[in-house]
Amino acid sequence: MRVTVLAGGVGGARFVRGLRAALEGSDAEITVVINTGDDLWLSGVRLQPDIDSILYALAGVNDTERGWGRAGETERVSAELREWGSGWPWFTLGDLDLGTHLARTGWLREGLTYSQIAGRLGSRWPIGVRLLPMTDTEVDTQVVVEDGARMHFQEWWTRHRATLPARAFENPGIEAAVPAPGVVEAITAADVVVLAPSNPVVSIGPILTVPGIREALAEATRVVGISPIVGGKVVRGMADACLTAIGVETSAVAVARHYGRRADGGVLDTWLVAQEDADLAPALAADGWDVRVGPLWMSDLEHSAALARAAITL
Amino acid sequence: MRVTVLAGGVGGARFVRGLRAALEGSDAEITVVINTGDDLWLSGVRLQPDIDSILYALAGVNDTERGWGRAGETERVSAELREWGSGWPWFTLGDLDLGTHLARTGWLREGLTYSQIAGRLGSRWPIGVRLLPMTDTEVDTQVVVEDGARMHFQEWWTRHRATLPARAFENPGIEAAVPAPGVVEAITAADVVVLAPSNPVVSIGPILTVPGIREALAEATRVVGISPIVGGKVVRGMADACLTAIGVETSAVAVARHYGRRADGGVLDTWLVAQEDADLAPALAADGWDVRVGPLWMSDLEHSAALARAAITL
Repeated sequence: MRVTVLAGGVGGARFVRGLRAALEGSDAEITVVINTGDDLWLSGVRLQPDIDSILYALAGVNDTERGWGRAGETERVSAELREWGSGWPWFTLGDLDLGTHLARTGWLREGLTYSQIAGRLGSRWPIGVRLLPMTDTEVDTQVVVEDGARMHFQEWWTRHRATLPARAFENPGIEAAVPAPGVVEAITAADVVVLAPSNPVVSIGPILTVPGIREALAEATRVVGISPIVGGKVVRGMADACLTAIGVETSAVAVARHYGRRADGGVLDTWLVAQEDADLAPALAADGWDVRVGPLWMSDLEHSAALARAAITL
Repeated sequence: MRVTVLAGGVGGARFVRGLRAALEGSDAEITVVINTGDDLWLSGVRLQPDIDSILYALAGVNDTERGWGRAGETERVSAELREWGSGWPWFTLGDLDLGTHLARTGWLREGLTYSQIAGRLGSRWPIGVRLLPMTDTEVDTQVVVEDGARMHFQEWWTRHRATLPARAFENPGIEAAVPAPGVVEAITAADVVVLAPSNPVVSIGPILTVPGIREALAEATRVVGISPIVGGKVVRGMADACLTAIGVETSAVAVARHYGRRADGGVLDTWLVAQEDADLAPALAADGWDVRVGPLWMSDLEHSAALARAAITL
């Protein structure tokens, strides 16, 4: 069995860990196509927050208390960077995490592509999952705020905690991007493609915007989406602020309609909602949707595995 | 009074600290034109060993026990880089030192030149000395070893401890380099220019090879050189291995002749040798050299200041 997941950072990581657990012992192949829209250059090195979050979580070296970064992290270098006035004082780069950024940036200088680098990153630990960036092209996410000013997504997200009302999210240059090698095939050859319960706007959104990926999804065997909204609230993160900016209500139904059914030119065949949203299912079903109710709370590995099992065995 | 020093790393740093002490309380201006020929890219960041050695020594944050790098250094990031197989396992990047490299590389990405970056680096601490890279162009030092193989100077120096017999030192691309802004003026406008007792081949050598610097020295008011050789031995480092490679004997006389008198098309007016080499002075004097005997052992700050005083008040 081949399963391909489109995913962002922390929510995606949790789902993929569950999926790996659910498929343990089988000869299933798991590929994760990861958002790189919030990558950035900082203090001379290239950061790929979503790739690293998924890598660290799969390797079991992530900081589960804090919810991001490496466990046992220190900040020796960041303290120096603040002294130099380099980077963003509100954005800490851990020392262990910097090891990843430096290695990646060194490989970039040697001419490796992002997908080659993802392969190297993924081979340090026996993670049992293939990691693919959505594209080898550098894509940015800019946030346009109310006064028309623009800032990098990380500034809006991490510094301002998504509290500045956003007018738009833009990915300058993405129209010239192409899917990374292996991405289209991973989507079209999979038995099932899953849209992880990641941020629909800034995680899944950029993946779907890379030219060629929607076309690949149109050829996929089956595409299942998992609602990142439970009971009208985001499960984690601040996706509601992003949804509001693009005029989408924070509800499991509105996000489904935002993605759209494949039969109507969208990307999904099936939409998985939580028990809390079971009463919304009939409205979608009336529009022809295949809506299922599943165990959406990924509170621990067992629950994440149950969700993954529900998603792939629908 | 304006003093300009051409210098490499550790020996240059020691001399400049002495010079600053010798001129303390005066309104003298000290400029150091620093070798950048052994700079390198490693794990995605730009290293400038000689600039950093001089900066750290002048700021008093250098590791005096070990003789290089920052005091109180740790190696968290380097341990990660080894796990990633990035960089050189025999070349450790300290965490505090990496802060400098990351800040520098970030500024390079922002479009700053190396001389602008040297200005920023030099403004963190009140070092009282202007730091200038010899050039804003990236210049490399390659070592050609006996079997014709080439390696980066740092590999030959740090990994092989200069034990592989060298056939030549080359600076590919240096013929296209130009002196960094301010370098030519710092040389021509100085009351005295001092060639620090640094490695004549791989520290002072690249500086003199940058097109335009010899021409500037030809117009200088006075140029004094300090022998890096005392009693037929290098004071520190492994300059003898470098001198041998270019066919120059490890002696205070041979190095003087290698630099040459300005009157004969070389770069020096005056050559300062140690008491131990006083017996060599007549041979040089017979060739028309202005040779002086001075206190060349920079064993502590007081001795370094005495040497600097001797060099600038000849």
